[in-house]
Amino acid sequence: MSEKLWQGRFDQPTDKMVEEYTASIHFDSRLYRYDIEGSIAHCRMLADCGIISHDEASQIVQALGEIRRETERGELNLDPSQEDIHMAVEQRLMQKIGEVGGKLHTARSRNDQIALDTRLYMRDVLLQCRRLLLDVITGLTDLAEKNLHVILPGFTHLQHAQPVLLAHHLLAYCEMFLRDEERMAQCFNRTNVMPLGSAALAGTTFPIDMERTARQLGFPRVIRNSMDAVSDRDYLIEFCAAGALAMMHISRLSEELVLWSSPEFDFVEISDAFCTGSSIMPQKKNPDVPELMRGKTGRIYGNLMALLTLTKGLPLTYNRDLQEDKEPAFDTADTLLSTLAVLNKMLPALQFHEEKMVQAAAQSFALATDVADYLVLKGVPFRKAHHVVGQLVSHCIREGKDLSDCTLDELKKFHKALEEDIFSILDIRSAVDRRRSLGGTSTERVREALEATRADVESRRRAADGDAPVIS
Amino acid sequence: MSEKLWQGRFDQPTDKMVEEYTASIHFDSRLYRYDIEGSIAHCRMLADCGIISHDEASQIVQALGEIRRETERGELNLDPSQEDIHMAVEQRLMQKIGEVGGKLHTARSRNDQIALDTRLYMRDVLLQCRRLLLDVITGLTDLAEKNLHVILPGFTHLQHAQPVLLAHHLLAYCEMFLRDEERMAQCFNRTNVMPLGSAALAGTTFPIDMERTARQLGFPRVIRNSMDAVSDRDYLIEFCAAGALAMMHISRLSEELVLWSSPEFDFVEISDAFCTGSSIMPQKKNPDVPELMRGKTGRIYGNLMALLTLTKGLPLTYNRDLQEDKEPAFDTADTLLSTLAVLNKMLPALQFHEEKMVQAAAQSFALATDVADYLVLKGVPFRKAHHVVGQLVSHCIREGKDLSDCTLDELKKFHKALEEDIFSILDIRSAVDRRRSLGGTSTERVREALEATRADVESRRRAADGDAPVIS
Amino acid sequence: MSEKLWQGRFDQPTDKMVEEYTASIHFDSRLYRYDIEGSIAHCRMLADCGIISHDEASQIVQALGEIRRETERGELNLDPSQEDIHMAVEQRLMQKIGEVGGKLHTARSRNDQIALDTRLYMRDVLLQCRRLLLDVITGLTDLAEKNLHVILPGFTHLQHAQPVLLAHHLLAYCEMFLRDEERMAQCFNRTNVMPLGSAALAGTTFPIDMERTARQLGFPRVIRNSMDAVSDRDYLIEFCAAGALAMMHISRLSEELVLWSSPEFDFVEISDAFCTGSSIMPQKKNPDVPELMRGKTGRIYGNLMALLTLTKGLPLTYNRDLQEDKEPAFDTADTLLSTLAVLNKMLPALQFHEEKMVQAAAQSFALATDVADYLVLKGVPFRKAHHVVGQLVSHCIREGKDLSDCTLDELKKFHKALEEDIFSILDIRSAVDRRRSLGGTSTERVREALEATRADVESRRRAADGDAPVIS
Amino acid sequence: MSEKLWQGRFDQPTDKMVEEYTASIHFDSRLYRYDIEGSIAHCRMLADCGIISHDEASQIVQALGEIRRETERGELNLDPSQEDIHMAVEQRLMQKIGEVGGKLHTARSRNDQIALDTRLYMRDVLLQCRRLLLDVITGLTDLAEKNLHVILPGFTHLQHAQPVLLAHHLLAYCEMFLRDEERMAQCFNRTNVMPLGSAALAGTTFPIDMERTARQLGFPRVIRNSMDAVSDRDYLIEFCAAGALAMMHISRLSEELVLWSSPEFDFVEISDAFCTGSSIMPQKKNPDVPELMRGKTGRIYGNLMALLTLTKGLPLTYNRDLQEDKEPAFDTADTLLSTLAVLNKMLPALQFHEEKMVQAAAQSFALATDVADYLVLKGVPFRKAHHVVGQLVSHCIREGKDLSDCTLDELKKFHKALEEDIFSILDIRSAVDRRRSLGGTSTERVREALEATRADVESRRRAADGDAPVIS
Repeated sequence: MSEKLWQGRFDQPTDKMVEEYTASIHFDSRLYRYDIEGSIAHCRMLADCGIISHDEASQIVQALGEIRRETERGELNLDPSQEDIHMAVEQRLMQKIGEVGGKLHTARSRNDQIALDTRLYMRDVLLQCRRLLLDVITGLTDLAEKNLHVILPGFTHLQHAQPVLLAHHLLAYCEMFLRDEERMAQCFNRTNVMPLGSAALAGTTFPIDMERTARQLGFPRVIRNSMDAVSDRDYLIEFCAAGALAMMHISRLSEELVLWSSPEFDFVEISDAFCTGSSIMPQKKNPDVPELMRGKTGRIYGNLMALLTLTKGLPLTYNRDLQEDKEPAFDTADTLLSTLAVLNKMLPALQFHEEKMVQAAAQSFALATDVADYLVLKGVPFRKAHHVVGQLVSHCIREGKDLSDCTLDELKKFHKALEEDIFSILDIRSAVDRRRSLGGTSTERVREALEATRADVESRRRAADGDAPVIS
Repeated sequence: MSEKLWQGRFDQPTDKMVEEYTASIHFDSRLYRYDIEGSIAHCRMLADCGIISHDEASQIVQALGEIRRETERGELNLDPSQEDIHMAVEQRLMQKIGEVGGKLHTARSRNDQIALDTRLYMRDVLLQCRRLLLDVITGLTDLAEKNLHVILPGFTHLQHAQPVLLAHHLLAYCEMFLRDEERMAQCFNRTNVMPLGSAALAGTTFPIDMERTARQLGFPRVIRNSMDAVSDRDYLIEFCAAGALAMMHISRLSEELVLWSSPEFDFVEISDAFCTGSSIMPQKKNPDVPELMRGKTGRIYGNLMALLTLTKGLPLTYNRDLQEDKEPAFDTADTLLSTLAVLNKMLPALQFHEEKMVQAAAQSFALATDVADYLVLKGVPFRKAHHVVGQLVSHCIREGKDLSDCTLDELKKFHKALEEDIFSILDIRSAVDRRRSLGGTSTERVREALEATRADVESRRRAADGDAPVIS
Repeated sequence: MSEKLWQGRFDQPTDKMVEEYTASIHFDSRLYRYDIEGSIAHCRMLADCGIISHDEASQIVQALGEIRRETERGELNLDPSQEDIHMAVEQRLMQKIGEVGGKLHTARSRNDQIALDTRLYMRDVLLQCRRLLLDVITGLTDLAEKNLHVILPGFTHLQHAQPVLLAHHLLAYCEMFLRDEERMAQCFNRTNVMPLGSAALAGTTFPIDMERTARQLGFPRVIRNSMDAVSDRDYLIEFCAAGALAMMHISRLSEELVLWSSPEFDFVEISDAFCTGSSIMPQKKNPDVPELMRGKTGRIYGNLMALLTLTKGLPLTYNRDLQEDKEPAFDTADTLLSTLAVLNKMLPALQFHEEKMVQAAAQSFALATDVADYLVLKGVPFRKAHHVVGQLVSHCIREGKDLSDCTLDELKKFHKALEEDIFSILDIRSAVDRRRSLGGTSTERVREALEATRADVESRRRAADGDAPVIS
Repeated sequence: MSEKLWQGRFDQPTDKMVEEYTASIHFDSRLYRYDIEGSIAHCRMLADCGIISHDEASQIVQALGEIRRETERGELNLDPSQEDIHMAVEQRLMQKIGEVGGKLHTARSRNDQIALDTRLYMRDVLLQCRRLLLDVITGLTDLAEKNLHVILPGFTHLQHAQPVLLAHHLLAYCEMFLRDEERMAQCFNRTNVMPLGSAALAGTTFPIDMERTARQLGFPRVIRNSMDAVSDRDYLIEFCAAGALAMMHISRLSEELVLWSSPEFDFVEISDAFCTGSSIMPQKKNPDVPELMRGKTGRIYGNLMALLTLTKGLPLTYNRDLQEDKEPAFDTADTLLSTLAVLNKMLPALQFHEEKMVQAAAQSFALATDVADYLVLKGVPFRKAHHVVGQLVSHCIREGKDLSDCTLDELKKFHKALEEDIFSILDIRSAVDRRRSLGGTSTERVREALEATRADVESRRRAADGDAPVIS
């Protein structure tokens, strides 16, 4: 066990079990790159402001570079007595260059240092999220284009409602993921603020230049209140909330893939490479990937709830509870990024069963609304037309036949406005193409939406590139 | 029990208990204004597009106006057999003007109608939220200005850390509420999209003009995918997530007000008008309002979790589960709006006990960091300086004295660089004013932050005014 | 606005907006019966212990009886200035009988009074829950018996796994609901403890007899610590957690009913009385009730999260936050009780499509495991047998045939141990009946399980009857 | 990458990224002991039932013993291509003893194997939890005894309410933890049921003896329905719910320790060994342990929410989503067990500041209720007495004096029944000891409660010992 860097005021050493209980190094060590990057920027700024000498700064910066390489090679001591990655790096620094290493922590505290490291990390995660979401949308538009003419039953209440294009169905998911990307981009902006120099909570007495630190680390702004800077975890919670929405969308898509690959639906075949078998049943091929994606929604919701609970009712400013902010945020990041990556790989490998889909679309009186609309065009009030067609459907169910199986005479018993031309209505492709309202399922509208979505993705890709930090 | 408007296809009536179980009218009736507003715009558009006659439209619009007034007077039948407010209004319409009323539902479905009504409602709620948040920030800046010179101990781990200005402390909350307002404004933009015309899920075959409807209702955009339009609830969940963050911030402020009004802290007096007494203990005066605000955080978190759970794994498009989206969103709206309103009223009535605060700020070695910083300026590496001062503090605790009670000789035993001028450091006001880093607690920086916050509030007020819909 | 009963120490009246914000009377008025019942028991005990006179007690008890009747008739003033039901009743009491009414609150506080009222209420709710759960189990066993010979595909991963009896499938839900009932019964025991006399938090100086109060109200035990008594809300949270599990089970059953009534599955028909139609699509018949049940899981989870958040980190003893305990618990009670009641009504009205189910059970190589087991009995290690049958299934898929379509020669190419008797294995009914392990799906085991379940239900009904409080 | 044991039916290998995404071996490897223990029992049973030979069983059992030792030494290959611990063990078994190893999986599936392993694991965790909770209660009773005469202010609304014994305060926590232990014991009983033999979902065709397996593994009961057996996760969720309640209680205690160690309260000193310092502020000594305990409540709540979300709406039986059940349950187990262990160590090291506490108890008119009670004994109705004392308190606040500072004449202006003997009432120790109602704070009652609690703990320790499984 090493002596703690803050030991001066203490008579007794930390209890061993407490050391383990309070350590964060087993999870915050992933921040080492950001910690060192931040320390280098801080150190250079200190020298530029004359708080330490340029020579001291050079020694520190060089040693930090070495520690980064040691850590990459797994050589940094990460045991619990080190508390956290910040202390581990500082301790190693002092081992390497002695007392001059003790100058690095001038004009900062772990409180603002942690805030900086976490913001640097989250900036990366958010950028990756945005790019992966855009990739998924591209994957969906590619699938949509490839299957532009495929018709399937649109469902409400898991009952056949009206026929729609598969492309239209897939583009609905694009809308969801576009909103997700927008939320991530806005969360990115609120994350992209530089807190270092807030020190413990009140700012520092040293003549530091926070804007210089910000420029070096590619931050466009410096925080405005030091107490907020060290106690704010909004950006983590907001990321977890945006991630919960994104994962909810993925869970809906997953649910459909599971449903659609059941023998009863049989609308899609997921490639062998994305399925696994059973330890006991030789015939099984299971849609494990979408099932797991759906299941992982739970942990993402749980992480959000963990962070909200954590921060509830905490007085200002930093409280040790806040150490518990990282694992949920890291887990949401890992889960979301890997899920998006796997989704990107799985989408192109989907084989849709066009014939099954179109067959299903023609069943279950899916054109009943079109018959009602036909009557409306003949002057029948919609509510009346709805009632008439409802009774007609009820009649067909009793007779075990479809609408198109009825004779004109039979139809006329339900409403005299039904004429020969009704039969031309009863075609699912034309039914699809008649829905030309904005955002509707007609091929024309869907083609437009496909183009608009692609253009949107392109402009967002450029925005993400523009947001990527340039670190000097 | 009235016959259902969709009864045509059914042989049996709905079970009475099921009618109660599935009804939403007891909570969605609050949407009546929006429902009627949306129906009027829809009806006018139908006439403008030649789908119904202008004469029919006039009858419908006039009758809808009457129904609005009847509802305001509490005369609309809202029993469970009506299912929901949408059906109740349509049924009443047909009672009033007969079959022509049956034309209103042309080219729309309850699915897109509900989406429209909820968006209209949420648009209002989000605007109110934004304005109330800005009022709270103004209240806090007023308090900050009024108490600009008050010093209190800044806390970390609920231990005295360093002295700060009360104004600085209050401005930390301004930062939180500014982020909340920004999130609400962005959620407002994602909410402010017009879905009517998406019909059941696929769009409609009628030649409607959705942009005309949008203009009438003050929407800048029309949705891009009809299936997304009827199944999207992101805007409700996002509002509940933004609300959860805002309430978390309020819970932190409440926690502090509860702490600060305890006899042990005694930093603040909450006006009698915001406290209540005990049924048994005659002496009690309890800080009920902040306690309740803190407690109401639970329901706000619960509402978010309810909505996330609700939407997890639902296949497209509308499923009846989605009816459960309203109560949590309404409850979050009601709770958040009333909490902000009460907070606005309570803030100006707070009496801070300046003397208690400043006394506390001078205790517990709150200037120890300043002594370390002093040593650093004399060339001692920070880590070394920290250790020296830690031992000095430990010595003072054993001796039962304060840093300023030590003689220079005594101090020099700990480090020879400690000189006579150290005593001038040990003044809390100058300690505060030395923290001039960006976002720091010095009076100068706090005054600047106060101005910046006020300017920010003003520009956001103008933005909110600009976002307020103009309904033609 | 009436003067508060605790007003003595206050100079200013409560702010009107605060009065509304802090009032609980709009939701706690449902406790009036329990409040009055508890007050009557308390009052009698006070007289029996000589703390008030028997004459005073008679006046109070009689007036409380009148207030109960007034409240039933909706005549009690329930406006926010009354704060809560407890104050409203006491105030009305003093209006009726003057100063002597002021003796009722001797030796108690609102803190223990609320604890008592809520426990009395929850005791009733828990008993109702237990009985409704037992009714649901009976409904399921009745369905199981009625459909004892119906075979359907057992699913894993929503893929056909092995054929099972529908009765076996339904009995799986019985096991879940039996666990739920057990949890509710254990929660009942922890709830069934008498807190009155704990007063504000410390007990009382009056010579009361708490066991006498307990006996009058049918409580078997008195609480053991007064501070715990007024701050404990475990029984509410535990009920909400048990309710969350029960609702999760119902959501699984609901999901299956929704799936099974889709055109693709078509395994079941839900009666018209439990479905509703569409406002636009005349053909629609939607499984609204199971959808809503599934959706209501969200609010039940949310209520649990609300209560857990609420109580996190509250110091002892009563804090006003705790007023927020009631609405989530009430909502869980209302939702769970109504859902169970509707479920009880819906279950007997289900029409299973036996033919569709058995057809499905025969598809998708559901007997592949049986072929592997056959090989094991011929000495082939299971893992080897599994591999062989996997390749055989793969062959059949390529050939587009079923296992039973293969010739013996064809089969022998995969393993020489496959003989003529393999074909007798390939019968789904015998496959079901061969699974005779404990808890297995064979008719014999299922019949036994049916009987065991019924016996279990009967003994639990008797236990619930025994637990029902006898109030003197 | 090794070939999968279920590969027979597949044409393509699993995608590498999918292999990583779907693997559980990085977290389920902690189950290896249970997996091997279960396999040994299963194997012996197969031999006893004549399904495999005793010689084969011996080979398998011996090899499994070796694999256990290899795993303990970290020699088992745990890479993602192994999927999970179950497959890793079986694969290693076949490497060691060839085809005969392939006989182990006869009459079982991973589905029931996982259910078995998890129940074995949870049984251990639940027993540890029960014992640690009992240790904490013992720690609290020891503290209570040691501080039996210490008086502190009892708080409601964080305001002084009435004086109580510190022992009484500590015993309130004992009541909470006793309920927690009871819930864990009941969860233990529902967990302690043997599922192996349920196979994939339907039971098995082999003539196995599940009761024999149960006896070997120390289970008192076998499951009653095979479909429930493989899809039930109630015991994990119930554990997480019971854990959430326990952690909520710990968060309340932690909150008090944090409050009480603030300079403003200064009621307690937490030993150096349980505190840490600041990286910047040399004087800081922070109550990190209770802060972290309070913070860890978040993850425990999150885990519960994750599991509830996970299982919502899953159709029967096993779905791959369920793989996500383990990490939240493991994390709750790890967090709860370590928190209880650290709490046990920290409690004896608390130093209460008796003098500060008793001083505080005498402030803030904490005996106002006693004055009201005094008036009641003189015949004044309680409500009237309350009002009188409220006005008296208000008078004292204005005059800046305490109740005992008033002259008798002064007092008599408020009520003539106030006599000389009132001054004997105004003693906090006698006020405490007058509260002799059941569960009250008088020394007499507290001493009794202490004894009762200890007896309870003893009988529960014996029950836990009796529940500990004896594995043959």
